[in-house]
Amino acid sequence: MPLQPDIVDQIVRIIGEERRVLIKKTDLLSYGYDASFGFFVPDLVCQVKCVEEVSEIVKLANREKIPITPRGNASGLSGGALPIEGGIVIDVSLWNDVLEIHRDDMIAIVSPGVITADIDRAAQKVGLMYPPDPSSSNVSTIAGNIAENSGGPRGLKYGVTKDYVLGLQVVTPEGHIIRTGGRTIKNVTGYDLTKLIVGSEGTLGIITEAILRLIPRPQATISLMAVFDDIVQAGYAITNVLTSGILPSKIEFMDQASIRAVESYKPMGLPINAEAVLFIELDGHPLAIRDEADYVYKLMQKTGALRVQKAETSDQEEKMWKVRKLVSPAVARHKPTKISEDATVPRSQIPSFLKRLREIKDKFDIDLVVFGHAGDGNLHPNILCDQRNKEEMKKVEKAVAAIFEAALDLGGTLSGEHGIGLMKKSFMPMEFDQFSLEMMKRIKQAWDPNNIMNPGKIFPKPGDRLVLR
Amino acid sequence: MPLQPDIVDQIVRIIGEERRVLIKKTDLLSYGYDASFGFFVPDLVCQVKCVEEVSEIVKLANREKIPITPRGNASGLSGGALPIEGGIVIDVSLWNDVLEIHRDDMIAIVSPGVITADIDRAAQKVGLMYPPDPSSSNVSTIAGNIAENSGGPRGLKYGVTKDYVLGLQVVTPEGHIIRTGGRTIKNVTGYDLTKLIVGSEGTLGIITEAILRLIPRPQATISLMAVFDDIVQAGYAITNVLTSGILPSKIEFMDQASIRAVESYKPMGLPINAEAVLFIELDGHPLAIRDEADYVYKLMQKTGALRVQKAETSDQEEKMWKVRKLVSPAVARHKPTKISEDATVPRSQIPSFLKRLREIKDKFDIDLVVFGHAGDGNLHPNILCDQRNKEEMKKVEKAVAAIFEAALDLGGTLSGEHGIGLMKKSFMPMEFDQFSLEMMKRIKQAWDPNNIMNPGKIFPKPGDRLVLR
Repeated sequence: MPLQPDIVDQIVRIIGEERRVLIKKTDLLSYGYDASFGFFVPDLVCQVKCVEEVSEIVKLANREKIPITPRGNASGLSGGALPIEGGIVIDVSLWNDVLEIHRDDMIAIVSPGVITADIDRAAQKVGLMYPPDPSSSNVSTIAGNIAENSGGPRGLKYGVTKDYVLGLQVVTPEGHIIRTGGRTIKNVTGYDLTKLIVGSEGTLGIITEAILRLIPRPQATISLMAVFDDIVQAGYAITNVLTSGILPSKIEFMDQASIRAVESYKPMGLPINAEAVLFIELDGHPLAIRDEADYVYKLMQKTGALRVQKAETSDQEEKMWKVRKLVSPAVARHKPTKISEDATVPRSQIPSFLKRLREIKDKFDIDLVVFGHAGDGNLHPNILCDQRNKEEMKKVEKAVAAIFEAALDLGGTLSGEHGIGLMKKSFMPMEFDQFSLEMMKRIKQAWDPNNIMNPGKIFPKPGDRLVLR
Repeated sequence: MPLQPDIVDQIVRIIGEERRVLIKKTDLLSYGYDASFGFFVPDLVCQVKCVEEVSEIVKLANREKIPITPRGNASGLSGGALPIEGGIVIDVSLWNDVLEIHRDDMIAIVSPGVITADIDRAAQKVGLMYPPDPSSSNVSTIAGNIAENSGGPRGLKYGVTKDYVLGLQVVTPEGHIIRTGGRTIKNVTGYDLTKLIVGSEGTLGIITEAILRLIPRPQATISLMAVFDDIVQAGYAITNVLTSGILPSKIEFMDQASIRAVESYKPMGLPINAEAVLFIELDGHPLAIRDEADYVYKLMQKTGALRVQKAETSDQEEKMWKVRKLVSPAVARHKPTKISEDATVPRSQIPSFLKRLREIKDKFDIDLVVFGHAGDGNLHPNILCDQRNKEEMKKVEKAVAAIFEAALDLGGTLSGEHGIGLMKKSFMPMEFDQFSLEMMKRIKQAWDPNNIMNPGKIFPKPGDRLVLR
């Protein structure tokens, strides 16, 4: 249902500039997608640039009970930025004027639309690091990362976005501007609203500024690649490293299908007959990691690696990590539809999870590609399919459910870093009992009594199930 | 108001063992204190040992609107475990039957009454570490640490309790048993109830089990001591280390009053004419920290240290850290009353904060001792006084307010690691605007509609102010 003309007029008056209020069908269509599955066109888009604009628009929307969906650059994989009930999309991607690095306090202060990788680049100039490095970091906005609590390869050693958010400015679902946390590393003053909002997928408010923790940048890195002819053996190799007392900055995993996809997309000299490869990065003091790299090298050999290779030059190292970054685009080329999951298991269950995934692939006869941040149990099983083929999609729906069942069976969780959004909400009752979900919903109701803030996400309605057709 | 006999009977029936239900005045008196200031006697104490007991007692209390105060070993410094509205104290300190270390998953699973230091000791046996190390770790329970989000010296490099809690079992204020989080390192499935409950000071439920993250234990440590004749210069030395690219595991600070208190309590050979000493610990790979220790040594000299000393043996190292642990008991001996604060400032403001504390000491003519975890801006200004001297306590009340004002002026926060509890609630409106506090209270109301769970903590009533008389 399109917005009433007087509502549109009020929004234009709040924003001041007509070109930042989009209502033409052609403009709105491009806001119907994100990097997940699904297409929902909003009624209006505001490209906001300051907190007062957000506050006024949200107040209006709350008064008129119009749904609001916050959006950065929409690279999310769980549908968090999709306006599934229409209404207003608040686009923060143009709002990137503040990117301050405070070296002495080891913090960054950023506007919501700042690109994630730009924060780390700015930190690097003064010897600091912003560790979270989602694969989309060159396009994703920091507000989107915060809303979804994004991870990335460095999560193994350094944790995820949540571990680096010290404070936020947020517009609540009723349009009030609040501040949470602050500039200090330690803070136990009242409830931790900061960490409640991180990962709440835009359902509790709109992030308008963030204070981020930075750390000293490691002086050096060493990278290794290990090739395996058995996927489960690669899983054991990961466990062996992690219990050796060495904590690498990254342990990434690619199965044969991912290796072959990359090679056919862009030949990188990968062993296409290998069942799995691991990419391992160590970071820290040069003397320490040289010693650790030797140890890991031998450990890989002992755990049955066919071949272990240490990057001898920075070019070689760069190429190794480029391969890993190519997986997603390479895989996406194969078939029209890619369903990307991020079910996560306890570290010790990685070999078992790999076994279960192999069984699911065979049982449902699906095109399954597995890669991801294996070191922290956060794998990305991707199902390649064709959305137009209804029979195939029925199988895919069942396979997705089987993947989640396997992860939960093994003591894992539905999502390690992509969020629940639209794609996974029907599976929430598989992971949580009634009262755990109820306590989450009470927070939502208490904060957003009119349910205008990103409605239809995270919490399933009775009878909701995954439909990909 | 004592509980009705039929309520007591019901509680005894739930617990089954009469000796774990305390109602005698003499028994109850010892539950009137914690390590803070204040004395409030409960009407009944239950020494619980399983989640079903907690659930049933809380259901009963919620039905009858009886206040409940959860309690571990009551070593908290902000009054979190004080039953200020009477009612039932739920004591978890006897409930310590589970302490499992899962080496492959790098996690610990613990009962609420397990002693904090025992977790680290158990982890150490398999080469792992539980980093949070509050000074009270040999007496504090893990549930108390989680409720208050305790810190400690290692917080500088490793963060606080919250950074290590992966999952919880909790009894809600209505008596429902819920599970939050899980065994995986990454988890973005729904709202992060785990991190909401950590640091909520027992106002949102009772912690009945925790899943904790462990990390590989650093192979080696090196400790140094640096002596300064100017307190502010010591502050600059801290900043210089932190911006050098080296992140020590600890940087602890003691001012002259703390040095002298320790020396008169137990002679340790400290320089009693020094204005300040820093204790620094580096941990990690032996080759890396040897190199880093040399660098820090020179940096201290360059920043004007009178003397720098590296612990050459493990005995020397142990003695250095014993000195730091002696500060609290040594200081407590001086006067009958000790008001221990933990206002925290951004790292760059440490020198300014030290200056402001010196001014406050002079202005209010109080006995002020300053020590603490200076590396993360988390200082502990302790005011030594005599509660029976009303005139003195008036000055102390004003000085406490001035300390918080200074910390907030400098961009800091009321509490870095002790919590708000009873002691700091009247200062909450100094740090938070109306709506930020309002959003916290809405969570409390939504979870605990009858306000039975640790009532009277964190949130001030209108007109509340600190009264120490």
